[in-house]
Amino acid sequence: MKIAVLGTGMVGRALAGRLSGLGHDVTIGTRDPHATMTRTEPDGMGNPPYSNWATTHPEVAVATFGEAAAGAELVVNATNGSGALPALAEATAEHLAGKVILDISNPLDFSHGFPPTLFVKDTDSLGEQIQRAFPQARVVKTLNTMNADLMVDPASLGAESSVFVSGDDAAAKATVTALLESFGHTDVIDLGDISTARGTEMLLPVWLRLMGALGTAGFNFKIVR
Amino acid sequence: MKIAVLGTGMVGRALAGRLSGLGHDVTIGTRDPHATMTRTEPDGMGNPPYSNWATTHPEVAVATFGEAAAGAELVVNATNGSGALPALAEATAEHLAGKVILDISNPLDFSHGFPPTLFVKDTDSLGEQIQRAFPQARVVKTLNTMNADLMVDPASLGAESSVFVSGDDAAAKATVTALLESFGHTDVIDLGDISTARGTEMLLPVWLRLMGALGTAGFNFKIVR
Repeated sequence: MKIAVLGTGMVGRALAGRLSGLGHDVTIGTRDPHATMTRTEPDGMGNPPYSNWATTHPEVAVATFGEAAAGAELVVNATNGSGALPALAEATAEHLAGKVILDISNPLDFSHGFPPTLFVKDTDSLGEQIQRAFPQARVVKTLNTMNADLMVDPASLGAESSVFVSGDDAAAKATVTALLESFGHTDVIDLGDISTARGTEMLLPVWLRLMGALGTAGFNFKIVR
Repeated sequence: MKIAVLGTGMVGRALAGRLSGLGHDVTIGTRDPHATMTRTEPDGMGNPPYSNWATTHPEVAVATFGEAAAGAELVVNATNGSGALPALAEATAEHLAGKVILDISNPLDFSHGFPPTLFVKDTDSLGEQIQRAFPQARVVKTLNTMNADLMVDPASLGAESSVFVSGDDAAAKATVTALLESFGHTDVIDLGDISTARGTEMLLPVWLRLMGALGTAGFNFKIVR
């Protein structure tokens, strides 16, 4: 499948690398490809520059948000929460129409320090905001409840854990579920329509506290039943 | 141990029955014991009247919130969220001073229908509100992330699941952890101070959506790591 991954951070890199390794034709979307490829400093989260990663993943193309989305059958939103709507606006509604948006972003607000608060919560979600802003796209919220490494290789935990999907379009959820299973997810739980993204986005506060208590991001939720 | 359980709903009954069965001296606290014992109609949640349950648990005493708290070494807050602070006020700060409050309540607001929203969230929690209102009590938030039956018998799921504790007082958390272990909890995760209750209270939205998607309340979170 031709897939655009919007976002050059750790989540975007993890998704792009894994999808490419599975044989998909992957283009990373970014605001300014020249700036992305020539930056030599770590980003604001301390990640090594994208160009380092790109040297080991020459098969992953880099393009603007709009170019990446235009050529894609499926679009992965791997931006940070505050960057999601602006990046998708640059991708353009025209290039998103009819396509699945696999949305991983979380509405985290770091402006008041750590732990971050949520800039959307409880009576709305970022997933719903994206669906409302791009009504012809088919948004599926998923993977936002775990660390980037586990998103694309959940088996590395050594025990089964769960991943959630939320979305209004059953066929889009089926497409996303097949991708998740190709990553190794064996317990995909369909929570219902896109409003159920409120629940998974509100998991982030306890996820962050668990990371602090356990001293690692290498954990995940399993729904035991 | 002499234990007061504040609240006569399904959570209060589950805790009181289990604690009593484990040999503790349990008193249920309620606003008006006479009304509680003489009511013959189901309550607002459709639960059978308390008097039915009381006939099979004659060893569990019934008293006012204040009387129950006065005689207790440990107080379980098993009220609903909106009833928590009023019930504890009736228990009185004097009778709560120095004692462990095992707080199970969730700040659910059903006034706009189902699913409920949260009347405290993200930058505060009901657990913190209780700790601030009763600074001499030692509040430990726990058990609020699962169904009442699983609170007191997690082994019934057939696979290990997790329970969280949040609180400022290490000795209080140790006391509560020992009680949780006596119920059969084998994975008790200390998240940190009482502000970490924000995380577990914000689990309720996804819990409610999971109940809808799975068609049962018989599930629990396990933190796989």
